[in-house]
Order: sequence, then structure tokens, then C-alpha cells
Amino acid sequence: MTKQTPMEALLDRWGEYEDIQHASMVLEWDQETHLPTGAGEARSQHLATLAGLSHEKLTAPAFRKALTAAERDGSLKGREQAMVREAKRTHDRARRVPRELVMELALAESRGLAAWKTAREEGQWSDFAENLSTLVRLKRRLAEAVGYQDTPYDALLEDFEPGATVKQLDPLLGELKEATVDLLGRIRRSKRRPDRKLLRRKFPKEGQLRLGRMVAETMGFDFTEGRLDLSTHPFCTSFHMSDVRLTTRVDERDLKPSLFGVIHEAGHGLYEQGIGRELARTPLGDSISLGIHESQSRLWENLVGRSRPFWKHCLPRARRVFPEALRGVRLDDFVFAINDVRPSMIRVEADEVTYNLHIILRYELEKELFSGELQPENLPEAWNRKMKELLGIVPRNASEGVLQDIHWAMGLMGYFPTYSLGNLYACQLYNKARKSIRGLDRRVENGKLLPLRDWLRTSIHAPGKTYSAAELIQRATGSPLSTKPFVDYANAKFGELYGL
Amino acid sequence: MTKQTPMEALLDRWGEYEDIQHASMVLEWDQETHLPTGAGEARSQHLATLAGLSHEKLTAPAFRKALTAAERDGSLKGREQAMVREAKRTHDRARRVPRELVMELALAESRGLAAWKTAREEGQWSDFAENLSTLVRLKRRLAEAVGYQDTPYDALLEDFEPGATVKQLDPLLGELKEATVDLLGRIRRSKRRPDRKLLRRKFPKEGQLRLGRMVAETMGFDFTEGRLDLSTHPFCTSFHMSDVRLTTRVDERDLKPSLFGVIHEAGHGLYEQGIGRELARTPLGDSISLGIHESQSRLWENLVGRSRPFWKHCLPRARRVFPEALRGVRLDDFVFAINDVRPSMIRVEADEVTYNLHIILRYELEKELFSGELQPENLPEAWNRKMKELLGIVPRNASEGVLQDIHWAMGLMGYFPTYSLGNLYACQLYNKARKSIRGLDRRVENGKLLPLRDWLRTSIHAPGKTYSAAELIQRATGSPLSTKPFVDYANAKFGELYGL
Repeated sequence: MTKQTPMEALLDRWGEYEDIQHASMVLEWDQETHLPTGAGEARSQHLATLAGLSHEKLTAPAFRKALTAAERDGSLKGREQAMVREAKRTHDRARRVPRELVMELALAESRGLAAWKTAREEGQWSDFAENLSTLVRLKRRLAEAVGYQDTPYDALLEDFEPGATVKQLDPLLGELKEATVDLLGRIRRSKRRPDRKLLRRKFPKEGQLRLGRMVAETMGFDFTEGRLDLSTHPFCTSFHMSDVRLTTRVDERDLKPSLFGVIHEAGHGLYEQGIGRELARTPLGDSISLGIHESQSRLWENLVGRSRPFWKHCLPRARRVFPEALRGVRLDDFVFAINDVRPSMIRVEADEVTYNLHIILRYELEKELFSGELQPENLPEAWNRKMKELLGIVPRNASEGVLQDIHWAMGLMGYFPTYSLGNLYACQLYNKARKSIRGLDRRVENGKLLPLRDWLRTSIHAPGKTYSAAELIQRATGSPLSTKPFVDYANAKFGELYGL
Repeated sequence: MTKQTPMEALLDRWGEYEDIQHASMVLEWDQETHLPTGAGEARSQHLATLAGLSHEKLTAPAFRKALTAAERDGSLKGREQAMVREAKRTHDRARRVPRELVMELALAESRGLAAWKTAREEGQWSDFAENLSTLVRLKRRLAEAVGYQDTPYDALLEDFEPGATVKQLDPLLGELKEATVDLLGRIRRSKRRPDRKLLRRKFPKEGQLRLGRMVAETMGFDFTEGRLDLSTHPFCTSFHMSDVRLTTRVDERDLKPSLFGVIHEAGHGLYEQGIGRELARTPLGDSISLGIHESQSRLWENLVGRSRPFWKHCLPRARRVFPEALRGVRLDDFVFAINDVRPSMIRVEADEVTYNLHIILRYELEKELFSGELQPENLPEAWNRKMKELLGIVPRNASEGVLQDIHWAMGLMGYFPTYSLGNLYACQLYNKARKSIRGLDRRVENGKLLPLRDWLRTSIHAPGKTYSAAELIQRATGSPLSTKPFVDYANAKFGELYGL
């Protein structure tokens, strides 16, 4: 055997760490899709052991030694340097967190999840408030351990959107809020309303799955290297570019959740399938940020999937699957119905316009929680006040208010903003795609979606973590991230639909 | 935190090792049931890493230290002593095999599997002969590394049926051969023949799955802690007593493969579900041997599932699922049809009588291969000669002869005898169950199978690896393993069916 280069040695270590991570993700996928009801405890134990092992491998002195040797290797090329950079970032982050804090957090998250489930069922905030206090306290300690530039909240952002800071997000989300509140006000004053009942007919499960699969295939999702299954909470996961799994749930009285859910998850899935194969088992073989990931799901779900050109292609096909439910439904009525804008309590059911207000609400509350301005026990009042302020409606109870999302219970704080970043990135990318792909709308009308997939693959998917999110968006669109494309898009689209 | 006892420290180490093993088994289950066609290579990599990790943990100096400390602890009770004994057996076995041999074997097995697949498709023995030579050579080295009492073949047996030796098997299987050849001769001379066409009608897939699930539930298989899925090769796997997975395959033109397949796998599944919960994550929390495992599947498949009392209960229910296919089918004709005895080429399709001859053929050939009497290139001729001698028929080609089984290609040598041991154990156990459970046949006729499950649970399942297979069978039945129960059973059952 010839001697390994420092880079090869590092990649061996990394590969082992990553294989353990991917094995965990297979177990998690199985947990959401196939686990027998009585097997939860056993599965938690398996996952805890794998989590411990992957942390052990990542922080091992042998890993550090390989990393240091690679860092000192002056002969590395650009991509290899990026690999070392990402390996170092991951390794350093893991080493900075004391093992005892990792375990306390894991415990608080698993307890938080259980308490949240009960609290949500009962609509009792007080059942969960103390868990949230603990989680916020531990997350503050985590932020101190990993370090940050301006504010502890930046350290949380870093885990989901590397490079993002409060300083950058505040103006972006501030502009978005202002423009959205304005647009929403105008929509609410419009006399036009879509007929939403079009989508509330009988859509048999088997047909919804068939249509979802057909649409995902048209988008270019490769089912020889992926799957679509059922789960309670839809998601996309990937164990390798050749094994990408989507899930959906089906409501037979409503076409939207499953159909747009599949398009959304398939957008994520195309990202995972499109990461360069040569980056597998390297520190670059993954998505760069959750915001960029969400931009891919949102671009397909909203900019393509809720557009008139797409439905010009798709409605006749959907009608073949549901001849009764879609009999006599006109294209324009259908497109208006799937683009109905109205303030609602539940984020995941929100339309394109109000969605970002749900996110901004959470972002503002999270910051106040972390700065200490807001105490967890006062969160429900703060939530309701902000709902009134931003959306003009107030939840009847905590379950449809402050308790609706699973994120905080799982310790996912600093995560929500990536959803709105995704919406912004998506519009900016789609504008550029329109310029780069001749006659994109006409292609979409004809069901020719592969040029778009391939443009995204080259611009966004293939590089994996080679560039930061900011670099990636600059390279792909020629400009830094801005709210303008989204605001222009929303004003134009909903202006036309609502006759503003 | 209070200081751990040596036993607790050992169990922590063991638990970690076992969790990795179980995670691998989840990945393997997924591979057989859900893996996208293009993801095979990625999955192999994940499995290889987990295999390396579990070997690393099992052979680590820290494991040895914990083991030694526990061995020296004079305060251990019987069950704890058994735990230490099993941990030591597993650890010692792993440490005796040089890492380089482990890797050579893994490579030879994966190459062997690929070569076998091609060879089998083409019917070309020569494509696989060299791979088999390599595997036999490496397995001989393995036997030398782990050690044995009389003959290297004993070391192979030890991996599947701990405690079994050629010295013990030769007389057992010799008696079985003599009695079976005699019985088969008498059956072939009988004028009676069942009408096999009864089972070759149209049995829709959905109905077969429904019936299989119903039968497994009647047996007491708990679907809140288990599943039934589809796969090309049916199997049973378990990640914990609370997560036991069965698979089946369905042929719509034949009721037998799926139905008896499900009963067989559910028999395995009941063993896994019945191992004492308190043994989870300990060295005792597993089946004691493959022969004992097979006794559970065979007992349910043949002694229950192919019996008249069972079908007195089940046929009316099956008729409700398949009203057309089973219209007018008489109980006695059905029972005779599912008990049709005739020499055939393929082991997995063989009846209860000829099945053991297929096994004896493989056992005799394996011993000759390991002693060097037989060279791999001469295996097909030896195979065909023995088929003629034992079953009176000769394969038309290697695919339905020497290439039919996957076992040798995967390095599973010394494995086949456990199938016949299973048949023998099963009859001996069922005889005892009849004596212990009052009116067992009548209960079976009424679909009351839980008393049998519970008797097996107490006698066989619950102790896990606490007792050796020989001790277990002695404790459960009061006698050592013997061929007599099987020979008496087969002579009585088929004597009646064929009017001998």
C-alpha cells in the first residue's frame, strides 16, 4: 500500500464520520416512515449511540492530527483547501462544545419534545414554559461555547445559515415586513376572492400519490436514485446523491397539501441529487445552508408550482387522474384558488404573502428571548400581540398559536429565518433563470422543466459546500441577496390576481 | 454519578457494540425492501464502515479491560456469569481473527456474490468456481485462526450452531438420511397423488398479504412491535424485541410461497419478540443458534401450518379472502395438496420429506470440500451424482443445481446443517408441547394458538442465550436432540396421506 497523502488521510476520517451520520439518517427516515409504534425507545437508544460515535470520531485526536497535517500541506488546490476549511469548521464547532453540555441539550430536547406534545394537545402553554426556559438557557451556554461576533443569536444562526447574522437579517427582514404588510393590506381591501372550494373535493389517495410522482418526475427527480413514501410530517432526506428520499401526507378532501408538499420536497430532493458526485464522502458533499436548501423547495413549489404556465401543462394531466373532482374547472380559477391569500393561524398552511410574516414574528420573538427582554412565561401574550399586529388575527388558544411548531421543543432556535431567506433567494434565482434560459415560461407551459433543473444544478447544486451561501448567490445571480426580487414578484403576481 | 460496577461497565461497552450491529441491520433491512436501484454502492460503503466500527468496539482494549474486570468479580449471579461468558466468547472470536483476514473475506464474499449472480444467470459454473476456491481457502484460514476440536469444519459450525460438531452431526444426519430415503421410496411407490392444481389458481396479491397478516396475528405476532413488508428474498430481522420485521414475496398464481413464507418468518419473529426484555443490550439478548431459530419457523410452518387442525380453522377464513379460487375446495384435498411430496431440484421449494435430503447433500459436499477430498471444479459432477443418489433426479443445468443457493457465495459454509437441525428440534419440541398443553390439536382447530406461542416463549424464546442449544432442548423436552420425533412424525403423517 502506498503512503496516504495528508488529504487522503483526512478524507478517510471524514468519510467514516459522514457514514455514521448517514446511517443515523437512515434510522431517522425509517422512524418517520416505518417504525412499529412500540419501538420508539429502542430506536432512540440506537440513535443516541450513533450520535455519540460520530461526535467521538469527529473530535478524536486522530481526526485533529489528520486535519492539522492537511492544513500544513502547501500543495493543496482550491477545492481541497475548501475541504480542509469545512472539515475544520465542523471539527472546531464540535470540540468547542463540552460533552456535558451536548448531553444536557440532548436530554432537554427529548424532554422538551415530550412536554410540547402534551402541551399542544391540551393547549396548555404552562406545561411547556419551563422546558423552553431550560432550552433557552442551554442554547445561550452553547452560543457562549461556540462563540459569536455581535450577539449570541448569531451563534444559533451559524448552525443553520453559516455566515448569517442579526446585523444582516434585520434590514432584510425589516424591508420584507414593510412591503408584505403593505401588500397584504391592499389584497384585503380587494373585492376579488378565489373559489377555494375547487380544491376541497374528493381526491383519492392513490391518485394524489400518482400525480405527485408524475410531477416530481417531470421536475427531473430521479426515482432510480430516490423514493417517495408517506409520513406524518413531510420531509426530504438524503444518505448519498444516489439515495434521496421524499415523504408526503395525503388528505383526500384537499389536493393542496400533498401536491405542493411533493413539489416542495422534490425541490429539496433535486438539490441533494444534484450535488457533485465527486464530493461524496468529503466535507463539501452537502448543502451549504438551510436558506439555500429552502430556496430550492420554494422555487419549485411557488415560482413554478403555483404559476399559470405550470398549470397550463399540468391541469389537463391532473384532470385525467381526477376526472370527477376537476371536471369543468377552468385554468384561471384553479390558479387563483391555489394562490388564495388570507391571514391564517398556522404557518405551514400559509400562502406566499403571509408566510413571511409568520417567520418574522418568530424571528423577532426569538431575538427577544435570547436578549432576555422576553421571558418564556410571557411568550403567549407576545405571540398573540404580534399576530394581531402583523396578520390582524389572534389565536383562540396556544395550540393554534405559540405551540404550533415543533422547532423550539427540539432546540431548533435560529432556524426559522432560513425559511424566509429561502423565499428571497428563490425569487432572485428565478429572475436570473428567466434571463439565462430562453423562453422559460413557454418551456414550463410545455412541461419542459429539465432546462431549469439543469441550470439550478450547475449554479446551485453541484458545488455543494464549495462556496458560502453569499458567494453562491453572488456567483449565480451577479448580485448579493436582496428583498427586491421577491417584493417585485409578489406585487406583480398578486396585483394581477387581485386586480390591485 | 455513582461508580459503575464492572458488570455495568461491561454492559455499557456491549450495548454500544450491539447498537452498531442493530443499526447495520436496519440498513440491511432497508436495502432489501426500499433501496433505490442506484444506491447499492453507497449503502455498501455505509455498511462497511459500521462493520469496521462494531469490530473496533468489540476488540478494543477498553472492552477487554471491562471484560476482565467483570470476570474477576466474584459476586456475579448465574445470569450475569452467562453474560460474561457470552461477551467473552464473542470478544475472543473477534480478536482471534486477524483484521487482514476479515478484510480479505469481506472482499471475497462481495466478489463471490457478484460472480455467483452472473454465473447463476448464465448457468456457468466455471464463472464461480475460482471464487469458491478462494472462499474455501479463506474459510480454512479462518477455522485455523479461531481454532477447533476435531476438524476445521467444526469451527465453521460454531458460528451458526455453537456447540455443534461433525462428530455429533454425522450420526444424526446419517439416521435422518436413511429414514428419509426409505420413506421417500415408499411414497413414490404409492398410487395416491394430491391435486396440486388447487393451489395454482388466481390469488390476488392484496388478499395474500391480508391473509398472511391475519395468520401471523393469530399466531400471536405483535404488529405494534413488528412489520410485514415485501422483498425479493423473504427474511426476518430484529433490531430489538420491540422491532421485529418480516418480509415475504407474492406469486399471484400460487398461494403457497407467500402464505407458508409468512408463517415461517412469523415463527422466527415470535422467537425474536419473545426474548426476555430484560436481556436487551446484553450478551444474552439474542437467539442461541440458527438451528433453534429454524426450529421455531419450521414448527409453525410445518407442524402447525401444514396440519389438518390448522386448516380446519383457516380454510373457511382463506375462502372468505379468495372466494373464487377456493370455491368448493375440500379440506382433505387442500391438506393433501399442501403436503405433496415429490423430489424436486430446488431446496427452498422442497416438501418436508425431501427437504432434509437437500441439506444432507450440501453437508456432505461441504465436508469433502473442507477436507480437500473434493475440488471446487469438480463440485457440479459431485452435486449431480448425489442428487441422483438421494432424490433420483438430475439437474438439467448448474442454475437449478449447484448454483441455486446464495449461501456459499456469501461465505456461509457450515450453515446448511442448521436447517435440518431446525426440523429435528421442531418435532421434538412439538411432541413436548402436545404433552404440556392440554388439547393442543383442538385448540389449533379453533384458532387458539396463543397457548402454543406462550409455551414456546417460556421454554425457548425468553432465555435468549442463557443456555446452550443442547441445554435448552434438554430443559424444554427432557431429552437430548434425537431424530426419532421427526422420523416418527414423518412416517405417521405421510403414511396416512399416502396410505402406506
